[in-house]
Amino acid sequence: MSSSFPDIASKLSSIAKDFHGRGWLLGTSGNLSAVVSREPLHLAMSPSGVDKGELTPDQILLIDEHGLVVSDKPTKPSDESPIHVRIAKARGAGAVLHTHSIWNTILSEHFGADGGIAIEGFEMLKGLQGVRTHEHREWLPIIENSQDMPALADRIGDTLKKHEHVHGFLLRRHGLYSWGQDLRQAKRHVEILEFLLEVLGRTLMISNRQKV
Amino acid sequence: MSSSFPDIASKLSSIAKDFHGRGWLLGTSGNLSAVVSREPLHLAMSPSGVDKGELTPDQILLIDEHGLVVSDKPTKPSDESPIHVRIAKARGAGAVLHTHSIWNTILSEHFGADGGIAIEGFEMLKGLQGVRTHEHREWLPIIENSQDMPALADRIGDTLKKHEHVHGFLLRRHGLYSWGQDLRQAKRHVEILEFLLEVLGRTLMISNRQKV
Amino acid sequence: MSSSFPDIASKLSSIAKDFHGRGWLLGTSGNLSAVVSREPLHLAMSPSGVDKGELTPDQILLIDEHGLVVSDKPTKPSDESPIHVRIAKARGAGAVLHTHSIWNTILSEHFGADGGIAIEGFEMLKGLQGVRTHEHREWLPIIENSQDMPALADRIGDTLKKHEHVHGFLLRRHGLYSWGQDLRQAKRHVEILEFLLEVLGRTLMISNRQKV
Amino acid sequence: MSSSFPDIASKLSSIAKDFHGRGWLLGTSGNLSAVVSREPLHLAMSPSGVDKGELTPDQILLIDEHGLVVSDKPTKPSDESPIHVRIAKARGAGAVLHTHSIWNTILSEHFGADGGIAIEGFEMLKGLQGVRTHEHREWLPIIENSQDMPALADRIGDTLKKHEHVHGFLLRRHGLYSWGQDLRQAKRHVEILEFLLEVLGRTLMISNRQKV
Repeated sequence: MSSSFPDIASKLSSIAKDFHGRGWLLGTSGNLSAVVSREPLHLAMSPSGVDKGELTPDQILLIDEHGLVVSDKPTKPSDESPIHVRIAKARGAGAVLHTHSIWNTILSEHFGADGGIAIEGFEMLKGLQGVRTHEHREWLPIIENSQDMPALADRIGDTLKKHEHVHGFLLRRHGLYSWGQDLRQAKRHVEILEFLLEVLGRTLMISNRQKV
Repeated sequence: MSSSFPDIASKLSSIAKDFHGRGWLLGTSGNLSAVVSREPLHLAMSPSGVDKGELTPDQILLIDEHGLVVSDKPTKPSDESPIHVRIAKARGAGAVLHTHSIWNTILSEHFGADGGIAIEGFEMLKGLQGVRTHEHREWLPIIENSQDMPALADRIGDTLKKHEHVHGFLLRRHGLYSWGQDLRQAKRHVEILEFLLEVLGRTLMISNRQKV
Repeated sequence: MSSSFPDIASKLSSIAKDFHGRGWLLGTSGNLSAVVSREPLHLAMSPSGVDKGELTPDQILLIDEHGLVVSDKPTKPSDESPIHVRIAKARGAGAVLHTHSIWNTILSEHFGADGGIAIEGFEMLKGLQGVRTHEHREWLPIIENSQDMPALADRIGDTLKKHEHVHGFLLRRHGLYSWGQDLRQAKRHVEILEFLLEVLGRTLMISNRQKV
Repeated sequence: MSSSFPDIASKLSSIAKDFHGRGWLLGTSGNLSAVVSREPLHLAMSPSGVDKGELTPDQILLIDEHGLVVSDKPTKPSDESPIHVRIAKARGAGAVLHTHSIWNTILSEHFGADGGIAIEGFEMLKGLQGVRTHEHREWLPIIENSQDMPALADRIGDTLKKHEHVHGFLLRRHGLYSWGQDLRQAKRHVEILEFLLEVLGRTLMISNRQKV
């Protein structure tokens, strides 16, 4: 929790490499951040437009609560930095991870008109912070995508307020955001949600129906 | 068979990393154990809540037949330790592996109401201990999931008694348990059962029918 | 951009290994090139018939604008060298990558009679050079395959002229060509197009319809 | 071609590790061989029951034309050694590789009653030795599985005689055999056939029909 910037940067690089290998961060998509200090709020964050399979610790930026770069590096932060900051504040999250996977992209559209996906009855859910039983019903909200970042951040803020206990959300035809107290927990949440989305997606193939 | 604890811990770590890479232990799910001594019964076991892709040998716990930690490590054993102990006793197993894969999760539900899956006619079955021909019919029981561990362990005990020759079982919407005389054999059994489940699952997609 | 041949050769080898791991260059299929000089036009290019998972920098050839080998190496360039040269000229591309993936092969046939695939509304599209919004509509032309290389190169030239803003094209039942200002961008474009093709392909499975 | 035994053993180990990673040799399934000398016929061969992801060069056996071990190692050769010998003789093959993949298992059953699979019109076919155009029609025979090895080897011999130009065959619900002049070519053939089988299999999912 009280990790130093170099340590956090190294972990972000390691997670990026792992997720890129799984196909969750292809084509420089996705971004990763972790809180370095609360007051003032500073986040270590992956830069924009970088191959996540080759992200090195020294490429990690330090940004402030406005998403502006604190460190004097030549790269710029992701356009989605405000979303990371918003989640870090609204949830007290210590880390925020954003992935573009095949299945989160497909299901964000498939269930888009429903406004979210209900995931229920899986043991895997117990890996989500605070969940004690597989009988838990997790709601994964789906938010319409937009290039208007402040508007999108507000929409996300509203969703987080409305759904206090969610562990992530989908942006439609865009990707998954999840978070945790620290990078370890955030990584765990991403793996769990990606796993469950793939289970739902492949179940649709077998059941041969439009909705589960 | 008469491996030392450090050797076993190292092997458990190696298998965990491999299976995590295949997506069978995502989100800290699953757990792995191997018998260190029979009398008293001591198992080397993966701790609870650890990223299996980064499990190190020194994190492996030593537990007794009640699932209590013998070694003085700060981590706690998995809630599912009693299941490992039960299988080690009932089967004389030297190693027990539990995976959460996409396909074992999906098929444990798809065939859940049938109480199990019959797998028959595959050469791959010959890799299961004691099976001599692909004409073998393997029954893979499916047991209802529960958070009541003693009750679940009893249910598993009953299943193992009823089906003397099975090489594994599924917990519904939860995962696969398999085992072997030693870690090598248990790993082989997991790979074979996961392979066959994926074959059945993808066959369902092609055949476009609800059941095989 | 002003990279030396050894540096480019090393990057080509690294991308080849990565793509082979993903199953996009199996069986010595596919080829990779990058411009070393513009005048005269010289390309660093992977040789014909080599296992891309084991491609070493010293195997990379230097070819001229006629696809002839400049360096005195015993291997021969790919038959598809003229296509690489054509793209480098027509687009001013600094790098050209050609992959054979499961999904680009399947969809090049599935949508073959339509002459191309329209990909629209995905955030991932923003990773393509010059695309500013997910509302972008990308056209991915499909060109009939042929063993008559000059004829095929002409057909490709016509397509590139007709569709000025495309970032790649498919050869029917053959594979994907994409390119970029440099290897980094070309790799990004391949990852994005392969990702989107897999999304479309798996969506077809769920929607259970012949066309999207 | 005139490689020494240590060199061949090292290559067999390397291919085994690669194919195991792709899920083609799970659960100790499959086997690999390469000719060391023609007269007398000696093959370097993977031993029975070994984890192919951990196969080391020193585990590779030397067998004669009767499938008997020449070297004095404690392991035994695969029961399928006679098949390797048969192919090495009938085709003059320098290497024989046998894989158990998800897709070769599924399609060997799906098309089993047809006695084989016709694969036609793919650029990828050009990677098969002697094939000059994607318009080539490759026949991949499917042979009924059996535990009677001499009978199976005879059946395979008949198939190889009847279909002189095939580059591989499937054993029903069992796996793929392919071969080549040397290990490099055999590996290429396996990758190509596995690729094309996956293309056919996934195409079936999209087309939603029982047969292509």
